Amino acid sequence: MLEQIRQRKWNLVRKELSDIHESEVANIIDELPEAERTVVFRLLPRQHASSIFEYLEPDVQQEIVKGLGKREVASILNDMSPDDRTAFLEKLPDPILKETLNLLTDDERRVASSLLGYDENSVGRLMTPYYVQAQPDWTVQQVFEHIRRYGKKAETLNVIYVIDERGRLIDDIRIAKCLMSPLETRVEELMDDKFVSLVDTMDKEEAVQIFRQYDRTALPVVTDSGVLVGIVTVDDILDVAEEEATEDIQKFGGLEALDLPYVETPLTTLIRKRAGWLIILFVGEMFTASAMGYFDAEIQKAVVLALFVPLVISSGGNSGSQAATLIIRAMALKELTLSDWWYVMRRELLSGFALGALLGAIGVLRITLWQKLGLFDYSEHWPLVAVTIFFTLVGIVMWGTLSGSMIPFALKRIGIDPATSSAPFVATLVDVTGLVIYFSIAAFILRGTLL
Amino acid sequence: MLEQIRQRKWNLVRKELSDIHESEVANIIDELPEAERTVVFRLLPRQHASSIFEYLEPDVQQEIVKGLGKREVASILNDMSPDDRTAFLEKLPDPILKETLNLLTDDERRVASSLLGYDENSVGRLMTPYYVQAQPDWTVQQVFEHIRRYGKKAETLNVIYVIDERGRLIDDIRIAKCLMSPLETRVEELMDDKFVSLVDTMDKEEAVQIFRQYDRTALPVVTDSGVLVGIVTVDDILDVAEEEATEDIQKFGGLEALDLPYVETPLTTLIRKRAGWLIILFVGEMFTASAMGYFDAEIQKAVVLALFVPLVISSGGNSGSQAATLIIRAMALKELTLSDWWYVMRRELLSGFALGALLGAIGVLRITLWQKLGLFDYSEHWPLVAVTIFFTLVGIVMWGTLSGSMIPFALKRIGIDPATSSAPFVATLVDVTGLVIYFSIAAFILRGTLL
Repeated sequence: MLEQIRQRKWNLVRKELSDIHESEVANIIDELPEAERTVVFRLLPRQHASSIFEYLEPDVQQEIVKGLGKREVASILNDMSPDDRTAFLEKLPDPILKETLNLLTDDERRVASSLLGYDENSVGRLMTPYYVQAQPDWTVQQVFEHIRRYGKKAETLNVIYVIDERGRLIDDIRIAKCLMSPLETRVEELMDDKFVSLVDTMDKEEAVQIFRQYDRTALPVVTDSGVLVGIVTVDDILDVAEEEATEDIQKFGGLEALDLPYVETPLTTLIRKRAGWLIILFVGEMFTASAMGYFDAEIQKAVVLALFVPLVISSGGNSGSQAATLIIRAMALKELTLSDWWYVMRRELLSGFALGALLGAIGVLRITLWQKLGLFDYSEHWPLVAVTIFFTLVGIVMWGTLSGSMIPFALKRIGIDPATSSAPFVATLVDVTGLVIYFSIAAFILRGTLL
Repeated sequence: MLEQIRQRKWNLVRKELSDIHESEVANIIDELPEAERTVVFRLLPRQHASSIFEYLEPDVQQEIVKGLGKREVASILNDMSPDDRTAFLEKLPDPILKETLNLLTDDERRVASSLLGYDENSVGRLMTPYYVQAQPDWTVQQVFEHIRRYGKKAETLNVIYVIDERGRLIDDIRIAKCLMSPLETRVEELMDDKFVSLVDTMDKEEAVQIFRQYDRTALPVVTDSGVLVGIVTVDDILDVAEEEATEDIQKFGGLEALDLPYVETPLTTLIRKRAGWLIILFVGEMFTASAMGYFDAEIQKAVVLALFVPLVISSGGNSGSQAATLIIRAMALKELTLSDWWYVMRRELLSGFALGALLGAIGVLRITLWQKLGLFDYSEHWPLVAVTIFFTLVGIVMWGTLSGSMIPFALKRIGIDPATSSAPFVATLVDVTGLVIYFSIAAFILRGTLL
């Protein structure tokens, strides 16, 4: 295919493209060098151009539109499904957006403007207004006639939505039920008055939860007053769920969410998004220098203490990251709510104690072995050093799991996304406090011997 | 509701439960004390029992089944949709599974056994064999008659699947197309020979990618030889995508994936899943003690160097975590492949240099300020100490971003899940090597003055 494009055998290219799925055609165009994208796009048969356009990467879409005539753009945009069109339009700069909207037919412009009127994180932005609706006094026969007339653009025909005379959603009926019933059955006879709906101003992430709970492939969207305004299909929800997970993962990793895929993010943005947290963590970590400066005299007297600094504080950081990861993800999936803090705290303190004692035992073993094998000399008071390390690890790991698990609750309580308490953030906090724990325990145990 | 259950007003409870959605009824039962679950479940009208059962938590399902008679269990299981039933059956211990399968009707048992025959990570486990199929020589009229007869259990009616005389999938047709066509149209006239399908033995995660690419609400599943055996709907794919993200997040956080929700994981399992990585990291981090022991003499001479140890190594760890997070997620979403390593390496080295210089500048500022303000005395050679810190940070941050971004590629190359290179893992690696970088730069710059 690429060979034929390079050789400009356009007839062959056109023929081959018409044989493959729209999504694959879009993939091929995405991968082409810029100069050839518009040329190839223009070869596409008119009736497929819109659906292929829907599958293109956002930046490729923008680029192709620039290379097309107004009439071509108009034809594509009028044929696109409204939810995908919204996703395209919302990325345009304001003046171009206005111009582009004017290319649409009156009907489509009205649809597009109303969808763009919603907040960008709201369910409204995912909506398509093409669905099948019916009224309670219709017969099944009338429903089918209605579908025949208006069903072509509908994203799903699995369910028809029943509305009252004011356009308010009053029920949903599986099309299977209609197909099973005699044609003269009235819609109201099939109703059970049980339905699930989304609200147009609802946050997208809330919609993900509802889809997850009810296992649906599409859900109706209503306004505050219950008027049916569109439907959302689960394929868009899958994308929202992915984006959400990516955002959470990036926050965990201690950087601002990128918004764009890694490969599409410019280098300067990449650096900026990372620098913020990195500087905050660095400034936070500076307190370790202060803390160690405070114990200057102790280190001077017993350099052996300094040797274990990275080991003990990183153990606190690691156990804190683990706890934070578990709790934040469980919160994102609504497995834990604020009221569970006490339950979590008890579990984490117990886990922390067990894990700390385990690491402590390994630490004692290491010091004993190295001393006995003559690999390192921890001074004549090495058993006391070992005891210090043991209690420090128990203390620090418990403190790490406690901070890691409680900070997400605290953040959530004051209305901040718990994912902000990323693993590096918890690790930094535990590093600083861990040093204080370490040197205090050392001062207590080693006073009169090494110190 | 809970009040009425406590007062055992069963008639009221039954009435109220029949007015709400099955998924909400399931939520109520999930939250009840154990003793009351089976009692309340038995109040449910027979025709809803199966669909409510499908929505219950796995452990609640097991418990309720224990409290029901064989005939009740049989009726529920025969009515469940096959994919949800598979999810229930696969959690049963072997002897009970056999007994339970015997409760099914011959037809349903055949379906259930064939689904359970698939590998637990394969698409086959998500499949339902209820879909609408047609043959090319049927008329649209015949298709509708077929739907009327067999469409009741079908999970989706949006698309009908066309098969040849050997049962092989040859096309899919949107039901809308049938509804728009005259009743005497033949199915073959509506075919375009373009369709997307999954293979039954394919990994679930691969199916997520395909759903994401093609924006479908359901996809047909075929065997190796192309025979249509079922469909998968996207609501199940949403669950798979969530599980996948949870697993990745937990691996990032430096612990084994839990398999069960946090609240359902027993404390001992929780500790075991965390202990593994924590011990590995601890043992790895022990090399920091060795590395510092190696520079024992330098620390003795210049305790001031020890003060900055946590600061410089954590900066390497943090920048490494950031890089690893970005790369691993981009790999999971197929934005990056193995062949991109060189592109990533250049970007990350540049980012690392910029970020390292930034942190280095802040470090120099801090030392200068503290010295001038008399907050701490970094010795008469403090400008050299500042220079040491600057170059160390540039070196360590570049090294951190490089390791964080390249380790996922290396792991993927040798066939290990890149998510295994969790943030703590990269941090530990960078801690150890970071110390060597730090003391080497210090030795070079400070020789003859402090050292």
